[in-house]
Amino acid sequence: MIITKKSYTFEVSPQSVDFNCQITLSSLTDLLLTAAQYNAEENGFGLRKLNNNGLSWVLLRLALEIDYFPLQYETVYIETWIEGVGRASTTRNFCIRNKEMQIIGYAASTWAMIDHQTRRAQDLFTLDNIGDFASEETVPIDKPIKLSERRGVLTDVFSAKYSHIDINRHVNTMRYVEWISNGFSPEHYSRKSVKRFDVNFMSEILFGEEVKVYKTEEAGDTYLFEILHNDKPSCRARLIFRSEK
Amino acid sequence: MIITKKSYTFEVSPQSVDFNCQITLSSLTDLLLTAAQYNAEENGFGLRKLNNNGLSWVLLRLALEIDYFPLQYETVYIETWIEGVGRASTTRNFCIRNKEMQIIGYAASTWAMIDHQTRRAQDLFTLDNIGDFASEETVPIDKPIKLSERRGVLTDVFSAKYSHIDINRHVNTMRYVEWISNGFSPEHYSRKSVKRFDVNFMSEILFGEEVKVYKTEEAGDTYLFEILHNDKPSCRARLIFRSEK
Repeated sequence: MIITKKSYTFEVSPQSVDFNCQITLSSLTDLLLTAAQYNAEENGFGLRKLNNNGLSWVLLRLALEIDYFPLQYETVYIETWIEGVGRASTTRNFCIRNKEMQIIGYAASTWAMIDHQTRRAQDLFTLDNIGDFASEETVPIDKPIKLSERRGVLTDVFSAKYSHIDINRHVNTMRYVEWISNGFSPEHYSRKSVKRFDVNFMSEILFGEEVKVYKTEEAGDTYLFEILHNDKPSCRARLIFRSEK
Repeated sequence: MIITKKSYTFEVSPQSVDFNCQITLSSLTDLLLTAAQYNAEENGFGLRKLNNNGLSWVLLRLALEIDYFPLQYETVYIETWIEGVGRASTTRNFCIRNKEMQIIGYAASTWAMIDHQTRRAQDLFTLDNIGDFASEETVPIDKPIKLSERRGVLTDVFSAKYSHIDINRHVNTMRYVEWISNGFSPEHYSRKSVKRFDVNFMSEILFGEEVKVYKTEEAGDTYLFEILHNDKPSCRARLIFRSEK
Protein backbone atom coordinates (compact mmCIF):
# COMPACT_ATOMS: atom_id res chain seq x y z
CA MET A 1 0.00 0.00 0.00
CA ILE A 2 1.38 3.39 -1.04
CA ILE A 3 -0.05 6.25 1.00
CA THR A 4 1.43 9.52 -0.12
CA LYS A 5 0.36 12.16 2.34
CA LYS A 6 2.32 15.34 2.06
CA SER A 7 2.45 18.89 3.37
CA TYR A 8 2.92 21.84 1.01
CA THR A 9 4.16 25.22 2.22
CA PHE A 10 2.70 28.49 0.99
CA GLU A 11 3.22 32.13 1.87
CA VAL A 12 0.12 34.33 1.85
CA SER A 13 0.96 36.67 -1.04
CA PRO A 14 0.12 40.40 -0.96
CA GLN A 15 -2.34 39.93 -3.83
CA SER A 16 -4.28 37.14 -2.12
CA VAL A 17 -5.49 39.17 0.85
CA ASP A 18 -8.56 41.34 1.26
CA PHE A 19 -8.84 44.84 2.74
CA ASN A 20 -8.47 43.24 6.23
CA CYS A 21 -5.04 41.91 5.20
CA GLN A 22 -6.43 38.38 5.63
CA ILE A 23 -6.30 35.71 2.93
CA THR A 24 -9.60 35.61 1.05
CA LEU A 25 -11.78 32.51 0.97
CA SER A 26 -11.10 32.19 -2.77
CA SER A 27 -7.32 32.45 -2.32
CA LEU A 28 -7.43 29.88 0.50
CA THR A 29 -9.48 27.59 -1.77
CA ASP A 30 -6.80 28.20 -4.43
CA LEU A 31 -4.10 26.98 -1.99
CA LEU A 32 -6.12 23.84 -1.22
CA LEU A 33 -6.60 23.08 -4.93
CA THR A 34 -2.95 23.84 -5.68
CA ALA A 35 -1.84 21.43 -2.90
CA ALA A 36 -4.27 18.85 -4.33
CA GLN A 37 -2.79 19.26 -7.81
CA TYR A 38 0.80 19.03 -6.56
CA ASN A 39 -0.04 15.90 -4.59
CA ALA A 40 -1.87 14.29 -7.53
CA GLU A 41 1.12 15.08 -9.81
CA GLU A 42 3.54 13.49 -7.38
CA ASN A 43 1.34 10.41 -7.02
CA GLY A 44 1.22 9.95 -10.78
CA PHE A 45 -2.33 10.98 -11.56
CA GLY A 46 -1.99 14.74 -11.89
CA LEU A 47 -3.72 16.96 -14.42
CA ARG A 48 -0.76 16.87 -16.81
CA LYS A 49 -0.87 13.07 -17.07
CA LEU A 50 -4.68 13.04 -17.28
CA ASN A 51 -4.66 15.76 -19.95
CA ASN A 52 -2.32 13.65 -22.07
CA ASN A 53 -5.03 10.98 -22.04
CA GLY A 54 -7.84 13.44 -22.80
CA LEU A 55 -9.04 13.38 -19.18
CA SER A 56 -9.39 15.97 -16.44
CA TRP A 57 -10.22 16.22 -12.74
CA VAL A 58 -13.35 18.13 -11.75
CA LEU A 59 -14.25 19.18 -8.23
CA LEU A 60 -17.74 18.03 -7.18
CA ARG A 61 -17.91 19.15 -3.54
CA LEU A 62 -15.76 20.92 -0.98
CA ALA A 63 -16.21 21.61 2.73
CA LEU A 64 -13.88 23.84 4.73
CA GLU A 65 -13.83 24.73 8.41
CA ILE A 66 -11.31 27.26 9.66
CA ASP A 67 -10.56 29.03 12.95
CA TYR A 68 -9.20 32.21 11.34
CA PHE A 69 -7.88 33.48 8.01
CA PRO A 70 -4.07 33.89 8.00
CA LEU A 71 -2.58 37.30 7.26
CA GLN A 72 -0.43 38.55 4.39
CA TYR A 73 3.11 37.12 4.41
CA GLU A 74 2.16 34.36 6.89
CA THR A 75 3.28 30.84 6.17
CA VAL A 76 0.52 28.26 5.74
CA TYR A 77 1.10 24.51 5.63
CA ILE A 78 -1.45 22.40 3.77
CA GLU A 79 -1.27 18.66 4.23
CA THR A 80 -3.36 16.59 1.83
CA TRP A 81 -4.17 12.94 1.27
CA ILE A 82 -6.76 10.68 -0.34
CA GLU A 83 -9.32 9.18 2.03
CA GLY A 84 -11.16 6.88 -0.34
CA VAL A 85 -11.60 5.99 -4.00
CA GLY A 86 -14.79 4.75 -5.67
CA ARG A 87 -15.64 4.22 -9.34
CA ALA A 88 -17.39 7.58 -9.65
CA SER A 89 -15.50 9.78 -7.19
CA THR A 90 -12.59 10.13 -4.80
CA THR A 91 -12.39 11.95 -1.47
CA ARG A 92 -9.35 14.11 -0.76
CA ASN A 93 -8.81 15.64 2.68
CA PHE A 94 -6.77 18.58 3.92
CA CYS A 95 -5.31 19.75 7.22
CA ILE A 96 -4.36 23.44 7.42
CA ARG A 97 -1.65 24.60 9.84
CA ASN A 98 -0.40 28.07 10.73
CA LYS A 99 3.21 29.23 10.96
CA GLU A 100 3.52 27.67 14.45
CA MET A 101 2.35 24.36 12.90
CA GLN A 102 -0.88 24.49 14.90
CA ILE A 103 -3.94 23.09 13.16
CA ILE A 104 -6.27 25.96 12.20
CA GLY A 105 -8.62 24.17 9.83
CA TYR A 106 -9.65 21.13 7.85
CA ALA A 107 -11.18 20.58 4.46
CA ALA A 108 -12.69 17.64 2.57
CA SER A 109 -13.27 17.43 -1.16
CA THR A 110 -14.89 15.06 -3.65
CA TRP A 111 -13.61 14.76 -7.21
CA ALA A 112 -14.60 13.03 -10.43
CA MET A 113 -12.57 12.38 -13.56
CA ILE A 114 -14.12 13.48 -16.84
CA ASP A 115 -13.36 12.93 -20.49
CA HIS A 116 -12.34 16.24 -22.06
CA GLN A 117 -14.42 15.69 -25.20
CA THR A 118 -17.59 14.07 -23.89
CA ARG A 119 -17.45 15.88 -20.48
CA ARG A 120 -18.69 12.62 -18.95
CA ALA A 121 -17.43 10.98 -15.77
CA GLN A 122 -14.94 8.15 -16.22
CA ASP A 123 -14.28 5.07 -14.07
CA LEU A 124 -11.54 5.99 -11.58
CA PHE A 125 -10.30 2.40 -11.40
CA THR A 126 -8.97 2.80 -14.97
CA LEU A 127 -6.20 4.90 -13.35
CA ASP A 128 -3.22 2.76 -12.40
CA ASN A 129 -3.18 1.90 -8.71
CA ILE A 130 -5.18 4.96 -7.56
CA GLY A 131 -6.95 2.68 -5.06
CA ASP A 132 -3.64 2.08 -3.29
CA PHE A 133 -3.66 5.73 -2.21
CA ALA A 134 -6.90 5.40 -0.22
CA SER A 135 -5.78 5.88 3.38
CA GLU A 136 -9.24 5.80 4.98
CA GLU A 137 -7.99 8.70 7.17
CA THR A 138 -10.85 11.12 7.82
CA VAL A 139 -10.93 14.72 9.01
CA PRO A 140 -12.85 15.78 12.17
CA ILE A 141 -15.40 17.94 10.34
CA ASP A 142 -18.73 17.03 8.75
CA LYS A 143 -18.48 15.69 5.19
CA PRO A 144 -19.25 18.18 2.37
CA ILE A 145 -23.05 18.46 2.50
CA LYS A 146 -25.37 18.09 -0.47
CA LEU A 147 -27.20 21.39 -0.91
CA SER A 148 -30.73 21.49 -2.26
CA GLU A 149 -32.31 24.10 -4.53
CA ARG A 150 -32.81 27.47 -2.85
CA ARG A 151 -33.12 30.26 -5.37
CA GLY A 152 -33.35 33.30 -3.01
CA VAL A 153 -32.69 36.89 -4.10
CA LEU A 154 -30.87 37.69 -7.34
CA THR A 155 -27.70 39.58 -6.39
CA ASP A 156 -25.63 39.57 -9.59
CA VAL A 157 -25.96 38.98 -13.36
CA PHE A 158 -23.12 38.99 -15.88
CA SER A 159 -21.58 36.86 -18.61
CA ALA A 160 -18.68 34.41 -18.16
CA LYS A 161 -15.50 36.07 -19.43
CA TYR A 162 -11.95 35.13 -20.46
CA SER A 163 -10.53 35.64 -16.93
CA HIS A 164 -13.10 33.23 -15.48
CA ILE A 165 -12.16 30.28 -17.71
CA ASP A 166 -9.47 27.71 -16.86
CA ILE A 167 -7.62 24.99 -18.78
CA ASN A 168 -10.79 22.86 -18.71
CA ARG A 169 -12.39 25.74 -20.69
CA HIS A 170 -14.99 26.22 -17.98
CA VAL A 171 -15.31 28.66 -15.08
CA ASN A 172 -12.54 28.16 -12.53
CA THR A 173 -13.44 27.19 -8.94
CA MET A 174 -11.80 30.36 -7.56
CA ARG A 175 -14.17 32.51 -9.59
CA TYR A 176 -17.24 30.82 -8.12
CA VAL A 177 -15.81 31.42 -4.64
CA GLU A 178 -15.18 35.08 -5.50
CA TRP A 179 -18.73 35.49 -6.81
CA ILE A 180 -20.13 33.93 -3.61
CA SER A 181 -17.80 36.03 -1.41
CA ASN A 182 -19.07 39.14 -3.23
CA GLY A 183 -22.49 38.53 -1.66
CA PHE A 184 -21.22 40.54 1.33
CA SER A 185 -19.81 44.04 1.86
CA PRO A 186 -16.40 44.90 3.37
CA GLU A 187 -18.37 46.13 6.42
CA HIS A 188 -19.79 42.59 6.85
CA TYR A 189 -16.27 41.12 6.69
CA SER A 190 -15.05 43.65 9.28
CA ARG A 191 -17.44 42.15 11.81
CA LYS A 192 -17.64 38.50 10.80
CA SER A 193 -15.58 35.71 9.33
CA VAL A 194 -16.45 32.43 7.64
CA LYS A 195 -16.24 29.42 9.95
CA ARG A 196 -17.60 26.82 7.52
CA PHE A 197 -17.93 26.83 3.74
CA ASP A 198 -19.64 24.14 1.64
CA VAL A 199 -19.83 24.16 -2.12
CA ASN A 200 -21.39 21.75 -4.65
CA PHE A 201 -20.68 21.87 -8.38
CA MET A 202 -23.42 20.54 -10.63
CA SER A 203 -22.65 21.68 -14.16
CA GLU A 204 -19.90 23.68 -15.77
CA ILE A 205 -20.21 27.26 -17.02
CA LEU A 206 -18.71 27.95 -20.43
CA PHE A 207 -17.38 31.19 -21.92
CA GLY A 208 -20.09 33.69 -22.82
CA GLU A 209 -22.89 32.05 -20.82
CA GLU A 210 -25.11 34.24 -18.65
CA VAL A 211 -24.35 33.84 -14.94
CA LYS A 212 -26.90 34.65 -12.23
CA VAL A 213 -26.07 34.64 -8.51
CA TYR A 214 -28.85 34.11 -5.95
CA LYS A 215 -28.53 34.49 -2.18
CA THR A 216 -30.71 33.40 0.77
CA GLU A 217 -30.17 34.45 4.39
CA GLU A 218 -30.99 31.91 7.10
CA ALA A 219 -30.93 31.88 10.91
CA GLY A 220 -27.57 31.32 12.61
CA ASP A 221 -25.52 33.60 10.37
CA THR A 222 -25.97 31.11 7.52
CA TYR A 223 -26.21 32.07 3.86
CA LEU A 224 -27.08 29.92 0.88
CA PHE A 225 -26.04 30.68 -2.67
CA GLU A 226 -27.14 29.32 -6.01
CA ILE A 227 -25.33 30.14 -9.24
CA LEU A 228 -27.10 29.53 -12.56
CA HIS A 229 -25.80 29.55 -16.11
CA ASN A 230 -28.31 30.12 -18.88
CA ASP A 231 -30.93 29.41 -16.14
CA LYS A 232 -29.50 25.94 -15.30
CA PRO A 233 -28.08 25.27 -11.79
CA SER A 234 -24.27 25.22 -11.82
CA CYS A 235 -23.20 25.66 -8.21
CA ARG A 236 -24.70 25.80 -4.71
CA ALA A 237 -22.91 26.98 -1.60
CA ARG A 238 -23.43 27.54 2.10
CA LEU A 239 -21.45 29.95 4.27
CA ILE A 240 -21.67 29.99 8.06
CA PHE A 241 -20.11 33.00 9.76
CA ARG A 242 -18.87 33.60 13.29
CA SER A 243 -19.53 37.03 14.73
CA GLU A 244 -16.51 37.57 16.94
CA LYS A 245 -13.46 38.72 14.95
CA MET B 1 25.36 54.08 -2.02
CA ILE B 2 23.14 51.04 -1.29
CA ILE B 3 21.71 49.45 -4.41
CA THR B 4 19.60 46.45 -3.56
CA LYS B 5 18.70 44.70 -6.77
CA LYS B 6 17.34 41.24 -6.27
CA SER B 7 15.76 38.35 -8.14
CA TYR B 8 12.66 36.58 -6.81
CA THR B 9 11.68 33.09 -7.93
CA PHE B 10 8.09 32.10 -8.67
CA GLU B 11 6.41 29.01 -10.00
CA VAL B 12 3.45 29.56 -12.32
CA SER B 13 0.63 28.11 -10.19
CA PRO B 14 -2.22 26.06 -11.70
CA GLN B 15 -4.71 28.78 -10.75
CA SER B 16 -2.78 31.59 -12.47
CA VAL B 17 -3.02 30.21 -16.00
CA ASP B 18 -5.70 30.66 -18.63
CA PHE B 19 -7.34 28.03 -20.86
CA ASN B 20 -4.11 28.00 -22.94
CA CYS B 21 -2.17 26.87 -19.84
CA GLN B 22 -0.22 30.17 -20.07
CA ILE B 23 0.08 32.61 -17.18
CA THR B 24 -2.50 35.39 -17.58
CA LEU B 25 -1.49 39.03 -17.96
CA SER B 26 -3.08 39.76 -14.56
CA SER B 27 -1.21 36.93 -12.83
CA LEU B 28 2.06 38.06 -14.43
CA THR B 29 1.34 41.61 -13.23
CA ASP B 30 0.69 40.09 -9.79
CA LEU B 31 4.16 38.49 -9.83
CA LEU B 32 5.76 41.84 -10.77
CA LEU B 33 3.92 43.64 -7.95
CA THR B 34 4.71 40.86 -5.47
CA ALA B 35 8.43 41.07 -6.38
CA ALA B 36 8.20 44.87 -5.98
CA GLN B 37 6.65 44.50 -2.52
CA TYR B 38 9.21 41.93 -1.39
CA ASN B 39 12.04 44.15 -2.58
CA ALA B 40 10.58 47.28 -0.93
CA GLU B 41 10.14 45.32 2.34
CA GLU B 42 13.76 44.16 2.24
CA ASN B 43 14.99 47.68 1.52
CA GLY B 44 13.10 49.07 4.51
CA PHE B 45 10.28 50.93 2.81
CA GLY B 46 7.74 48.18 2.27
CA LEU B 47 4.00 48.44 2.69
CA ARG B 48 4.08 47.15 6.26
CA LYS B 49 6.41 49.95 7.39
CA LEU B 50 4.50 52.56 5.38
CA ASN B 51 1.18 51.35 6.77
CA ASN B 52 2.48 51.80 10.30
CA ASN B 53 2.99 55.47 9.44
CA GLY B 54 -0.42 55.84 7.78
CA LEU B 55 1.13 55.73 4.29
CA SER B 56 0.79 53.45 1.28
CA TRP B 57 2.34 52.88 -2.14
CA VAL B 58 0.15 53.39 -5.21
CA LEU B 59 1.01 52.35 -8.74
CA LEU B 60 0.72 55.20 -11.26
CA ARG B 61 1.99 53.59 -14.49
CA LEU B 62 3.27 50.26 -15.70
CA ALA B 63 4.73 49.12 -19.02
CA LEU B 64 5.48 45.49 -19.83
CA GLU B 65 7.00 43.88 -22.91
CA ILE B 66 7.21 40.11 -23.09
CA ASP B 67 8.28 37.53 -25.68
CA TYR B 68 5.86 34.83 -24.48
CA PHE B 69 3.74 33.93 -21.47
CA PRO B 70 5.26 31.09 -19.40
CA LEU B 71 3.26 27.90 -18.87
CA GLN B 72 1.80 26.33 -15.73
CA TYR B 73 4.46 24.95 -13.34
CA GLU B 74 7.28 26.86 -15.10
CA THR B 75 9.75 28.76 -12.98
CA VAL B 76 9.93 32.51 -13.54
CA TYR B 77 12.65 34.76 -12.15
CA ILE B 78 11.79 38.41 -11.62
CA GLU B 79 14.64 40.78 -10.89
CA THR B 80 13.66 44.24 -9.68
CA TRP B 81 15.42 47.47 -8.75
CA ILE B 82 14.79 51.19 -8.38
CA GLU B 83 15.92 53.32 -11.31
CA GLY B 84 15.24 56.78 -9.91
CA VAL B 85 13.53 58.65 -7.07
CA GLY B 86 11.91 62.09 -7.27
CA ARG B 87 9.77 63.95 -4.75
CA ALA B 88 6.51 62.88 -6.39
CA SER B 89 7.33 59.44 -7.81
CA THR B 90 9.83 56.64 -8.10
CA THR B 91 10.63 54.36 -11.05
CA ARG B 92 11.01 50.64 -10.42
CA ASN B 93 12.20 48.32 -13.20
CA PHE B 94 11.91 44.60 -13.77
CA CYS B 95 13.70 41.95 -15.81
CA ILE B 96 11.80 38.69 -16.38
CA ARG B 97 13.69 35.44 -17.02
CA ASN B 98 12.48 31.97 -17.91
CA LYS B 99 13.53 28.69 -16.34
CA GLU B 100 16.70 28.66 -18.48
CA MET B 101 17.49 32.14 -17.05
CA GLN B 102 17.01 33.69 -20.51
CA ILE B 103 15.50 37.18 -20.53
CA ILE B 104 11.94 36.97 -21.86
CA GLY B 105 10.67 40.42 -20.89
CA TYR B 106 11.09 43.73 -19.14
CA ALA B 107 8.79 46.03 -17.22
CA ALA B 108 8.96 49.56 -15.84
CA SER B 109 6.69 51.08 -13.22
CA THR B 110 6.10 54.45 -11.59
CA TRP B 111 4.88 54.73 -8.00
CA ALA B 112 3.72 57.44 -5.62
CA MET B 113 3.34 57.35 -1.85
CA ILE B 114 -0.01 58.45 -0.48
CA ASP B 115 -1.37 59.29 2.95
CA HIS B 116 -4.03 56.71 3.89
CA GLN B 117 -6.42 59.32 5.28
CA THR B 118 -6.09 62.24 2.86
CA ARG B 119 -5.28 59.96 -0.17
CA ARG B 120 -2.81 62.68 -1.24
CA ALA B 121 0.70 62.13 -2.56
CA GLN B 122 3.53 62.56 -0.04
CA ASP B 123 7.13 63.72 -0.52
CA LEU B 124 9.23 60.58 -1.13
CA PHE B 125 12.31 62.20 0.38
CA THR B 126 10.64 61.96 3.80
CA LEU B 127 11.47 58.21 3.57
CA ASP B 128 14.89 57.46 5.09
CA ASN B 129 17.58 57.11 2.46
CA ILE B 130 15.24 55.97 -0.36
CA GLY B 131 17.36 58.11 -2.72
CA ASP B 132 20.33 55.83 -2.06
CA PHE B 133 18.50 53.02 -3.85
CA ALA B 134 18.33 54.92 -7.17
CA SER B 135 20.57 52.90 -9.48
CA GLU B 136 19.91 54.85 -12.69
CA GLU B 137 19.81 51.44 -14.42
CA THR B 138 17.21 51.52 -17.18
CA VAL B 139 15.42 48.75 -19.11
CA PRO B 140 15.63 48.47 -22.93
CA ILE B 141 11.90 49.15 -23.54
CA ASP B 142 10.02 52.43 -23.96
CA LYS B 143 9.01 54.12 -20.70
CA PRO B 144 5.37 53.65 -19.61
CA ILE B 145 3.45 55.96 -21.94
CA LYS B 146 0.89 58.55 -20.85
CA LEU B 147 -2.43 57.59 -22.41
CA SER B 148 -4.95 60.23 -23.42
CA GLU B 149 -8.74 60.06 -23.23
CA ARG B 150 -10.28 57.59 -25.71
CA ARG B 151 -13.74 56.50 -24.64
CA GLY B 152 -14.54 53.96 -27.40
CA VAL B 153 -17.24 51.32 -27.11
CA LEU B 154 -18.77 50.36 -23.75
CA THR B 155 -17.98 46.68 -23.17
CA ASP B 156 -18.83 46.12 -19.49
CA VAL B 157 -20.73 47.74 -16.59
CA PHE B 158 -20.84 46.48 -13.00
CA SER B 159 -20.23 47.65 -9.43
CA ALA B 160 -16.96 47.30 -7.49
CA LYS B 161 -17.29 44.35 -5.12
CA TYR B 162 -15.55 42.89 -2.05
CA SER B 163 -13.22 40.66 -4.11
CA HIS B 164 -12.00 43.68 -6.09
CA ILE B 165 -10.85 45.69 -3.05
CA ASP B 166 -7.36 45.47 -1.50
CA ILE B 167 -5.77 46.62 1.76
CA ASN B 168 -5.81 50.22 0.45
CA ARG B 169 -9.61 49.79 0.33
CA HIS B 170 -9.63 50.48 -3.40
CA VAL B 171 -9.75 48.25 -6.48
CA ASN B 172 -6.64 46.09 -6.75
CA THR B 173 -4.37 46.41 -9.80
CA MET B 174 -4.93 42.76 -10.76
CA ARG B 175 -8.67 43.38 -11.08
CA TYR B 176 -8.15 46.22 -13.57
CA VAL B 177 -5.89 43.94 -15.61
CA GLU B 178 -8.53 41.19 -15.53
CA TRP B 179 -11.24 43.62 -16.65
CA ILE B 180 -9.03 44.81 -19.53
CA SER B 181 -8.07 41.22 -20.46
CA ASN B 182 -11.78 40.38 -20.57
CA GLY B 183 -12.11 42.70 -23.58
CA PHE B 184 -11.14 39.67 -25.71
CA SER B 185 -12.50 36.16 -26.24
CA PRO B 186 -10.61 32.89 -25.68
CA GLU B 187 -10.63 32.56 -29.50
CA HIS B 188 -8.68 35.86 -29.73
CA TYR B 189 -6.11 34.58 -27.20
CA SER B 190 -5.76 31.33 -29.19
CA ARG B 191 -4.45 33.31 -32.14
CA LYS B 192 -2.66 36.26 -30.52
CA SER B 193 -0.65 37.17 -27.48
CA VAL B 194 0.16 40.46 -25.80
CA LYS B 195 3.58 41.83 -26.70
CA ARG B 196 3.30 45.20 -24.92
CA PHE B 197 0.97 46.38 -22.15
CA ASP B 198 0.76 49.94 -20.80
CA VAL B 199 -1.49 51.04 -17.98
CA ASN B 200 -2.06 54.43 -16.28
CA PHE B 201 -3.94 54.82 -13.00
CA MET B 202 -5.62 58.18 -12.47
CA SER B 203 -8.05 57.78 -9.57
CA GLU B 204 -8.99 54.98 -7.26
CA ILE B 205 -12.25 53.01 -7.41
CA LEU B 206 -13.96 52.41 -4.07
CA PHE B 207 -16.35 49.64 -2.99
CA GLY B 208 -19.82 49.95 -4.49
CA GLU B 209 -18.91 52.44 -7.22
CA GLU B 210 -20.19 51.85 -10.74
CA VAL B 211 -17.45 50.67 -13.10
CA LYS B 212 -17.63 51.09 -16.89
CA VAL B 213 -15.12 49.58 -19.30
CA TYR B 214 -14.62 51.15 -22.75
CA LYS B 215 -12.57 49.68 -25.59
CA THR B 216 -11.18 51.13 -28.85
CA GLU B 217 -9.56 49.11 -31.63
CA GLU B 218 -6.70 50.74 -33.56
CA ALA B 219 -4.47 49.70 -36.46
CA GLY B 220 -1.54 47.43 -35.72
CA ASP B 221 -3.37 45.03 -33.43
CA THR B 222 -3.54 47.80 -30.81
CA TYR B 223 -6.39 48.24 -28.35
CA LEU B 224 -7.06 51.11 -25.96
CA PHE B 225 -9.12 50.79 -22.80
CA GLU B 226 -10.63 53.35 -20.48
CA ILE B 227 -12.19 52.42 -17.14
CA LEU B 228 -14.49 54.89 -15.42
CA HIS B 229 -15.91 54.91 -11.90
CA ASN B 230 -19.07 56.91 -11.35
CA ASP B 231 -18.27 58.46 -14.78
CA LYS B 232 -14.79 59.70 -13.73
CA PRO B 233 -11.67 58.30 -15.46
CA SER B 234 -9.85 55.80 -13.26
CA CYS B 235 -7.57 53.83 -15.56
CA ARG B 236 -6.38 53.82 -19.17
CA ALA B 237 -4.55 51.00 -20.87
CA ARG B 238 -3.05 49.98 -24.20
CA LEU B 239 -2.48 46.44 -25.39
CA ILE B 240 -0.44 45.57 -28.48
CA PHE B 241 -0.75 41.98 -29.70
CA ARG B 242 1.45 39.82 -31.89
CA SER B 243 -0.33 37.51 -34.30
CA GLU B 244 1.97 34.55 -34.46
CA LYS B 245 1.53 32.21 -31.48
